[in-house]
Amino acid sequence: MLTLFFSPGACSLASHIALIEAGVPFELKRLKFAENEQRSPEYLKVNPKGRVPALVTEKGTLTETPALLIYIAQLVPEKNLAPLDDAFALAELQAFNSYIASTVHVAHAHGRRGSRWADEQSSFDDMHRKVPQTMSDCFRLIEDDFLKGPWVMGDQFTVADIYLFVMEDWLKGDRVDIADFPRVRDHYERMKARPAVQQALASEAAA
Amino acid sequence: MLTLFFSPGACSLASHIALIEAGVPFELKRLKFAENEQRSPEYLKVNPKGRVPALVTEKGTLTETPALLIYIAQLVPEKNLAPLDDAFALAELQAFNSYIASTVHVAHAHGRRGSRWADEQSSFDDMHRKVPQTMSDCFRLIEDDFLKGPWVMGDQFTVADIYLFVMEDWLKGDRVDIADFPRVRDHYERMKARPAVQQALASEAAA
Ligand SMILES: N[C@@H](CCC(=O)N[C@@H](CS)C(=O)NCC(=O)O)C(=O)O
Ligand SMILES: N[C@@H](CCC(=O)N[C@@H](CS)C(=O)NCC(=O)O)C(=O)O
Repeated sequence: MLTLFFSPGACSLASHIALIEAGVPFELKRLKFAENEQRSPEYLKVNPKGRVPALVTEKGTLTETPALLIYIAQLVPEKNLAPLDDAFALAELQAFNSYIASTVHVAHAHGRRGSRWADEQSSFDDMHRKVPQTMSDCFRLIEDDFLKGPWVMGDQFTVADIYLFVMEDWLKGDRVDIADFPRVRDHYERMKARPAVQQALASEAAA
Repeated sequence: MLTLFFSPGACSLASHIALIEAGVPFELKRLKFAENEQRSPEYLKVNPKGRVPALVTEKGTLTETPALLIYIAQLVPEKNLAPLDDAFALAELQAFNSYIASTVHVAHAHGRRGSRWADEQSSFDDMHRKVPQTMSDCFRLIEDDFLKGPWVMGDQFTVADIYLFVMEDWLKGDRVDIADFPRVRDHYERMKARPAVQQALASEAAA
């Protein structure tokens, strides 16, 4: 049995949706960020980074969203959640996921987690002010260059769509109007219509 | 023929070393960061992100170090540069690479690229001051929890070792003494002894 540690609406939502799309059995364990449970001694034994997601498997614990997404896709190769047999296509998908993890997610995090990278309140305020611009720059590239359409990789729905959905879902909180990016907005609507997405959002809201 | 766009000593060094370890033919194209060539209209056609690395292949251009490293490993599966047939081990390796890209590299970048995330000089100074601490925190985790030894994944040398080497090589410039992390320091020495590493460093210095 797989166990996913998550916090509602955090990047762990991507792994959560992917597990439902994959149709594999798993259980959820919620961490309360408001109570700093991600830094509790018990959780640091699970994931010494003190972050979500963490996926506990029979063989050990896995972390980092791009790694989890490919792992989940590999559990159910017949569902084609990643182009596992085409090295070039897989690299394109991985480039997309890696861009989200190292650039888009990081841009977003500057709005609320400035203390990761600086110490002064004036720096946190400065970082917070810039988030709409950095997130818009990222989504300009996604809209114009990376989202092939209708799905990230073209005709085939993959885990990259799930990861993109989580970033799309953050845009409003980041003071970016998704309507500025019509192809992205259509993608977001298509994602929200998927039963797996609705199920994940409902169970995170109820957790 | 593969073409790697790089800047000497940048994170593109990881893909450069990996190509040499793989033994596949490639050519190098240097971008001069001092002249902002990574933002030239010609290069933005290759990689609209305006960053290195970019690997031009017969099928198209690939970006993002974690994606390139797995792609290069897949070109020569017989060299075992990644555990391609073991989903769990591959996810562990990918988690390591993703941690470098989204956390370690990002911590480093705050020392010199603060304008990605803020606008005020005081914020850049604040971020620059914190780099030794954030990089040390990352290497504490790598030393204690992630580096299995002698290589990142244990007995088998993989692309994760190459990526870690580039971060190790940045530590001095980030005002961190590698001697604080004895297992990391040994790894760095073992990496520097590899002919592929020496060849890559020499050709980047001469470029
Ligand atoms: N690179 C990691 C990032 C993980 C991460 O930063 N997770 C955030 C939630 S979106 C977290 O756990 N934050 C809690 C904290 O910083 O204390 C990934 O892609 O999984
Ligand atoms: N997430 C990307 C990061 C690429 C990146 O930031 N490259 C740096 C060099 S280490 C760069 O091109 N900087 C030039 C600039 O910011 O103008 C990767 O892992 O490949």
